[in-house]
Amino acid sequence: MGSYELEEERILSWLKSRRATRVLIQAPDGIKPYLRDLCEVLAAAGIEAIVSGSHAWGGCDVAVREAVLVGADAVVHIGHHGPVRFRPPGNLLFIEGRAGVSIHGVVEIAAEKLVEKGVENVALLTTIQHLHELRHAKSLLSEHGINVFLARSSKPYMREGLITGCDVEAAKALESKVEAFLVVSGGVFHALGVGLITRKTVFAADPYTNRVLDIERNVRRVIAVRLNHLADALDAREALIVASTKPGQFSATRIRRVKAFLSSRGIKCKVAVFGDLDRGVLENLGSFDVYVNAACPRLAVDDYHIFPGPVINPGELRYLDEGLENYDPASALQW
Amino acid sequence: MGSYELEEERILSWLKSRRATRVLIQAPDGIKPYLRDLCEVLAAAGIEAIVSGSHAWGGCDVAVREAVLVGADAVVHIGHHGPVRFRPPGNLLFIEGRAGVSIHGVVEIAAEKLVEKGVENVALLTTIQHLHELRHAKSLLSEHGINVFLARSSKPYMREGLITGCDVEAAKALESKVEAFLVVSGGVFHALGVGLITRKTVFAADPYTNRVLDIERNVRRVIAVRLNHLADALDAREALIVASTKPGQFSATRIRRVKAFLSSRGIKCKVAVFGDLDRGVLENLGSFDVYVNAACPRLAVDDYHIFPGPVINPGELRYLDEGLENYDPASALQW
Repeated sequence: MGSYELEEERILSWLKSRRATRVLIQAPDGIKPYLRDLCEVLAAAGIEAIVSGSHAWGGCDVAVREAVLVGADAVVHIGHHGPVRFRPPGNLLFIEGRAGVSIHGVVEIAAEKLVEKGVENVALLTTIQHLHELRHAKSLLSEHGINVFLARSSKPYMREGLITGCDVEAAKALESKVEAFLVVSGGVFHALGVGLITRKTVFAADPYTNRVLDIERNVRRVIAVRLNHLADALDAREALIVASTKPGQFSATRIRRVKAFLSSRGIKCKVAVFGDLDRGVLENLGSFDVYVNAACPRLAVDDYHIFPGPVINPGELRYLDEGLENYDPASALQW
Repeated sequence: MGSYELEEERILSWLKSRRATRVLIQAPDGIKPYLRDLCEVLAAAGIEAIVSGSHAWGGCDVAVREAVLVGADAVVHIGHHGPVRFRPPGNLLFIEGRAGVSIHGVVEIAAEKLVEKGVENVALLTTIQHLHELRHAKSLLSEHGINVFLARSSKPYMREGLITGCDVEAAKALESKVEAFLVVSGGVFHALGVGLITRKTVFAADPYTNRVLDIERNVRRVIAVRLNHLADALDAREALIVASTKPGQFSATRIRRVKAFLSSRGIKCKVAVFGDLDRGVLENLGSFDVYVNAACPRLAVDDYHIFPGPVINPGELRYLDEGLENYDPASALQW
């Protein structure tokens, strides 16, 4: 599966410039096994490295509080592009975690597939792990006579061609210009986000497996589940609002908005906050008719099975009033 | 299984006196389903109640950082006796969570069993859920002609007759005075702590099932596992020091001490901190020859199966030098 560029020297000099003596290092699960060398480089320089064993799901999920608790002077967060929906403290460094695997092969395969399908205009998107190869991917596609479009999200820290699990604004901006989207990324998780907000064909190009997949079936499956949960939620009388303690996910305003909506429909509600969610921690609170997921919206899309009942996202609440006829899957990603 | 006394009125007046507008409520999993009435009482008084969905394993595991993150003015922690190994902030209230179940029946059964076994002197211990019945239990035992001894831990906030998962000092103090220990508590978890630090017979009296159990077999099983893990750890060359982000569990000094010991044996080590541990988050970090558990010591005693390799507690490290012949299970509970 290749390795990751962890920029040991850059981390070391940044820590030295801050005179840090203890650092908390955070990375997504897939990158964690590659942290050993970095820890040794830091130890050799007299800096105490503590790895955060917790999951790190995104730039919204930064262990700033954990760092305070363990007495770290600084936090190095590897594998995401930057802070999402929270003000980053000054002692936080983001390291991209560039993937060692080349995307050349899979983009060639994608180009042939696009030509074969008669796609002339494509929007190219990728994740932070492969963003350094965006220009190269664009050239490859152009060599096949494909017009490549790039855009960027308006959110801070987002760069051209970059998408995350919940920020697919760059895709939305290009919807009217292209016949298809090409998402270069491991798995289909990121491509699925694009599929939910656009009505165009979306190809997921996975550089780890060299497979290019039209994700239409995945999108349809998500929509079926969303409609199913919304239909079940129509009769709810008691709701649990599920919020997150992750710095970029908790929003008192969002909770208040959800509460007001539920109250207006006569639905009783209770609010609970969680770190990482699993079915067990949800079941501990007893049984509810519906769960309103005010944490990461992807939980309802990808991990709906961890909720002990129907789960709906804040952006989908309005369908309880409007009915499901005009359901737009983009609602699932609205906060 | 009965309910719990959550002292709604006391909580409400405390919150009002602090002019709190948003409170984070925390309770162990077993008490969580009983929080609905409390939430409604608070909501009716205009106080926004947010339940912490995270596990709450002890007075060391208080969601003080979580409370800051969700913007709560105050924290109500239900089900434990007080703060353990950290300085409590002023906006934190501990509520005992007295169990609604009576211990009368099971203590009667225990008294008969003690008389039958010829026990004349017994040390009586219980958990915070049943501590309000300690005097009653003592009287019942006395009526059967049994001498009842009580003691208290020297730790702050600990009360007479009270033990926790890791603080069984009250038991140790009475070892020379009694022939047996009687621990009134659900399950055998608390009794097992007593069994590990004493060489006397320990009876677990469970008021939920009305069963009284001699836990000798449970203690022997724990010792066998501890010896097994220590033996496997003798050849270790690379260790993961497992620390916790829970306020009363993280200790930089303990980590430094463990590191120094491992280094003196030529064992390479890396430090990682976790919130709640499971096998998955440990496996994410790759493979290690041994895990040194600098988090809650009970993890190695009760949940050793979540570690992907042999796990030893800081108090047990010395056996790697001394050999296992004189293993004292009390070491497992030493920090």
